Amino acid sequence: PLRQVTGEKGRKQQKMTVVRAEGGGGGGINPEIRKSEEKVVDAVVVTELSKNITPYCRCWRSGTFPLCDGSHVKHNKANGDNVGPLLLKKQ
Amino acid sequence: PLRQVTGEKGRKQQKMTVVRAEGGGGGGINPEIRKSEEKVVDAVVVTELSKNITPYCRCWRSGTFPLCDGSHVKHNKANGDNVGPLLLKKQ
Ligand code: FES
Ligand code: FES
Repeated sequence: PLRQVTGEKGRKQQKMTVVRAEGGGGGGINPEIRKSEEKVVDAVVVTELSKNITPYCRCWRSGTFPLCDGSHVKHNKANGDNVGPLLLKKQ
Repeated sequence: PLRQVTGEKGRKQQKMTVVRAEGGGGGGINPEIRKSEEKVVDAVVVTELSKNITPYCRCWRSGTFPLCDGSHVKHNKANGDNVGPLLLKKQ
């Protein structure tokens, strides 16, 4: 999605190009995961969790989405961001 | 963060302005939530869930973060995105 706006300012014609943020899809936060789905919703039946702690991804960069694989670290460093996972704990 | 690149193409000088995506913080996906924290991690002790289904936010736009308040709908519409919550189910 590349939006082009052409306008005039005084005599000179000015062209402004709004470029999408890297990997962000024009303000979107999910550049790649299951883009054929209208809305990516996942469900966890918490009684079926096997480990004491299971991290779930909230950065949309995990290679094992919906699970967190640590990719938020690279995303945060590259973008000055501060996102992290949701931890599901059995106790 | 507004990056400006000035270049030349033939005789005309062309000015290109790279504008950050709305609310995206230059590729970041969390514009507002707990920005004083180096990494926003939340934990849920699943035995303490009260409702049968509890949606947790993955869009970083919820007014009740870490819970989902439906704000992903507005975000998806405005940005052509497809993100949605993680549903924690007791059964
Ligand atoms: S990989 Fe996305 S939150 Fe960890
Ligand atoms: S409000 Fe963020 S996923 Fe619903």
